[in-house]
Amino acid sequence: MKKILGTSLLLFGMVAFGQSKEDSIQFRKISTEILNNGKGYSELRELTKNIGHRLSGSEAYEKSVKWAEQKLREAGADKVWLQEVMIPVWERGKESLNIQTSNGKWKSLKMLSLGNSEGTGGKDVSGEIIMVKSMEEYDKLPAEKVKDKIVFFNYAFSQSFIETFKAYGDAAKYRTTAASLTAKKGGKFAIVRSLSSAFDDVPHTGAMRYEDKVSKIPAVAIGSTTADELEALLKKQKVTAKLNSNCGMKGEKLSHSVIGEITGKKDQSVIVVGGHLDSWDVGEGAHDDGAGIVQSIEVLRTFKKLAIPNNHTIRVVCFANEENGVKGGIQYGKTVKEKNEKHLFAIETDAGGFAPRGIALDMDDAKRNQIKSWSNLFLPYGVYNFEERFSGTDLYPLHDMGIPAAELMPDSQRYFDIHHTEEDTFEKVNRRELLLGATALTQIIYMIDKNW
Amino acid sequence: MKKILGTSLLLFGMVAFGQSKEDSIQFRKISTEILNNGKGYSELRELTKNIGHRLSGSEAYEKSVKWAEQKLREAGADKVWLQEVMIPVWERGKESLNIQTSNGKWKSLKMLSLGNSEGTGGKDVSGEIIMVKSMEEYDKLPAEKVKDKIVFFNYAFSQSFIETFKAYGDAAKYRTTAASLTAKKGGKFAIVRSLSSAFDDVPHTGAMRYEDKVSKIPAVAIGSTTADELEALLKKQKVTAKLNSNCGMKGEKLSHSVIGEITGKKDQSVIVVGGHLDSWDVGEGAHDDGAGIVQSIEVLRTFKKLAIPNNHTIRVVCFANEENGVKGGIQYGKTVKEKNEKHLFAIETDAGGFAPRGIALDMDDAKRNQIKSWSNLFLPYGVYNFEERFSGTDLYPLHDMGIPAAELMPDSQRYFDIHHTEEDTFEKVNRRELLLGATALTQIIYMIDKNW
Repeated sequence: MKKILGTSLLLFGMVAFGQSKEDSIQFRKISTEILNNGKGYSELRELTKNIGHRLSGSEAYEKSVKWAEQKLREAGADKVWLQEVMIPVWERGKESLNIQTSNGKWKSLKMLSLGNSEGTGGKDVSGEIIMVKSMEEYDKLPAEKVKDKIVFFNYAFSQSFIETFKAYGDAAKYRTTAASLTAKKGGKFAIVRSLSSAFDDVPHTGAMRYEDKVSKIPAVAIGSTTADELEALLKKQKVTAKLNSNCGMKGEKLSHSVIGEITGKKDQSVIVVGGHLDSWDVGEGAHDDGAGIVQSIEVLRTFKKLAIPNNHTIRVVCFANEENGVKGGIQYGKTVKEKNEKHLFAIETDAGGFAPRGIALDMDDAKRNQIKSWSNLFLPYGVYNFEERFSGTDLYPLHDMGIPAAELMPDSQRYFDIHHTEEDTFEKVNRRELLLGATALTQIIYMIDKNW
Repeated sequence: MKKILGTSLLLFGMVAFGQSKEDSIQFRKISTEILNNGKGYSELRELTKNIGHRLSGSEAYEKSVKWAEQKLREAGADKVWLQEVMIPVWERGKESLNIQTSNGKWKSLKMLSLGNSEGTGGKDVSGEIIMVKSMEEYDKLPAEKVKDKIVFFNYAFSQSFIETFKAYGDAAKYRTTAASLTAKKGGKFAIVRSLSSAFDDVPHTGAMRYEDKVSKIPAVAIGSTTADELEALLKKQKVTAKLNSNCGMKGEKLSHSVIGEITGKKDQSVIVVGGHLDSWDVGEGAHDDGAGIVQSIEVLRTFKKLAIPNNHTIRVVCFANEENGVKGGIQYGKTVKEKNEKHLFAIETDAGGFAPRGIALDMDDAKRNQIKSWSNLFLPYGVYNFEERFSGTDLYPLHDMGIPAAELMPDSQRYFDIHHTEEDTFEKVNRRELLLGATALTQIIYMIDKNW
C-alpha cells in the first residue's frame, strides 16, 4: 500500500491539550532519545543469546546477576548493589510422557513438567487417563473413579476475552491446583492443557503449588494440539499414560536481586522501576521478563543521558526468583520496611515487551486521578489506558505497605502464545515495541518525580 | 510472571458508558464470534501458502481472483461478481547488483528493483557511485557531478516518529522520485536505501514513478545494513556499481476486482469494506494486504452468521492493482459514478493485520463527531483513536465524490520491518491481532448500518 499522509492531531506529542508545554517537550525528547539511541534491544540480545534462560538457582541466573550489575553501571547508576535473597531451587532433569492406545503402541508426547512439581524420581509411573473439561466436572467425580488414574485437565484458554491476561487468570487455577486436586482423590499424576492462546503444539510450563498435607504427585503440561488429539482419542478408547521425570525441589540457596540507582537531587525518597531477572528454564526469557529488565535499565540510562534533573532517587530493581517463589519481591519489601526507606512510587514491567497501551494504577483515588489528568500527554505515544488494576507480583509487598504501585500494560495479544515456552526468544521481540515500553516508563517516572 | 487479576473497568465491552446496552451486547457478540469462529486466519493461510505473492497481471493474481470469489460465496454473500479493470503489467525477471572496490574485487549486493522501474534490458550498466543523504544535498549537486554516475540516495527511515506511517511518508519521496531525479542530471541509475524500520539486510520494493519526458533509468533498493556498509566504504574509497536487470512494463491486460455483497433489507444504498487482493511480487503479501482481504470477508461472514439485520447493502471489495497503479480503486469509483449508486460509507483495511488501535475518519465534521460519540463502545476492544486522517488509497476516488471514507488503524510498529519484502509472510501475522481487526471493522459497520 501507498500512503499520502494527511493531517494528524498527534503531532509527536507536541500538542499538549492544556498540559504544560514543557512536559510535552520533555516527553518528546525522551521518545526521540530512546527510539534512536536506546540500548534495550541490544542488551536484550546479550541477555538472551549470551546467557539464555536463567531459572533461579541456576548458573545462568548467577551470570545474569553479574551482567545486570555491569549494565546498570554502564547506564550511569550512581550506586549498584546486590540484595541477598534466599531462593528455592527447582530442577527439571530428564522427562518423558508416553501414551499407549488400544492397539498397544506407545507414542511420545511433547510435554513440560510444571515448575515446582515433583517428578517420578526417574521411575515409570503409569495409569489410565481420565479427562475432565472443567473444575466443576472434576469436583463431581467420586474419588473411586480417580484412584490410581491420571487426570487430564483439558480446560482451554478462552479466546473470548479481549485482554489475554483475563483468559490467563481464568485458566490459571488448572495449572496451579491440578496436582493436589488429583492427589486428594488418589490419582497418580495430573496432565494439564497448556495456558496458551496459540493453536500449536508448544507446551507451557509455569508455577504450580502443592496444598499442605497433600501428597506431592507430578503435574505436567501438554500443548493445545496434543490436548485436542488426546481428547479425540479418549472419546474412542482407553488410553494409558506413562510418565518418567526427575524434576523436584533441591532445597534453598543464597542468591541476589540486582539494584542500581541515581541519587535524588532534592531528597532520598525512592521511585522504583523494575522487572524480574530470572526466567523459566525453557526458551530465552525474552518477553518474560528480559524485556522488563532492559526497559528498566533504559529508564535510568535516559535520565542520565538527557540530564533530567531527578528530585528523588530513581531506583532500578532486577528482582530474583519471581517465577517460582517471588522471594526477590518479598525480600525487597522486607528490606524497605526494615530500613524505613521512604518510597514514593513503584512501577513494574512484566507483561511482555510489546507496544504499550496503558499503565495499571494500584493506589488511592487522589493519586490515580492525578496521573489520569496527565493522560493527554501520553496519548501521542499510544498510551491511553489508566485503569485501576493489580500492579504486578514483585511489587505486591510494597503495595501492601501502602506505596502507590503501577504496572506497564503492553498489548497483550501475542504474550500467551509464547509465555513460559521454548518460543519466548529474542526473535519474538520487536525493537520499536520494546523501546516504546521503555519510553512510557521513563515518561511516567519523569512526571511522578517532578510532581510528587 | 504470574497474575492475580484485579477489577477492571473494561468488562468485555458490556459497560456501555451511556451508550445503548443493545449496542454493547452486539459488539460483544461480534467479538466472541470472530475470536472463536473467525475464518480469517485460516483463509489467510490458504491465500499466502497456496497462492503466495500475486502481483497484478501474474497468473497468481488470477488464481487469487477465483479464490476470493469462492470465499465470498462461502461467507454467505447474496451476490458475487468480478469488475473488469485494465491493469498495467510489470515484470521483474532476473536482476543483480554488484560493487567493485579499489582492490578490484566484485561483491554481490542483496537488492530489489523498485516496482514499475525499467531495467537494463539484460545488459550490464556500470558507473561510479556517489552518495547523498538528503534531497537537499542532491538538489545542490551540479549536473556535471552526477553525469554518468550512479546516485545512492541514503536517507534513513526515521525512528523518531511514534507512528511509523509518518516515517514512511517522510521517506517515500526517495523511492518514488530517485530515478527521474538522477536521470535529469545525466546519471545512469539510482540506488535507494529501503524504506525500512528494521536494522537488517532485507530490501523493500514498492512503487516508483517516472516523470514525463524524462529518460526512464533503473532504480533499485538495498537493505539497511548493506546501505550502512556501502556508506562506510564510500567514505574510504571510490566504488563502482554494476546493475543487470530485466524488469519493465509489459503493456496492459484485462483483469478484475472481486466484489461480494449482502443485500440491504431496507434499501440498496451501499456500505463498502475492502482491501487489495494484489501484492508485490516478493514474500506472500500477508500483511499487505492479504490481512485486509480476509478481514473484509470476515465482516460479511459475521453479519450472516449472527443474522445481524443489515438495513443497507454491505459490500466487500477486493481491489485489483493497488500496488502499482490503483486501477481497481479508480475503476470502482468510476463505476459507482456511472451507475449512480448511492454509497453511505466506505472503509479500507490496508495497514497490516496488527491489533487495531483506531479508525481514521475522512468525512465532514458532523459525521465524524457522530462516530466519535460511539468511541466508548470501542474502548474495551483497544480501539481509541478516531482521528481525521487520510482514508486509504483505494477509497480515494470515493472520498473525492464526497462519500464518507475511513480506514482501520492497526498498531504500526512492525509493519515497515516487512512491508514489500520477502519477509511479509503468514508467519508474521498473529491470529488474534488479525481477528480483532475484523472485529473492529464489523463493529463500525454495524453502527453505521444501524444509524445512517
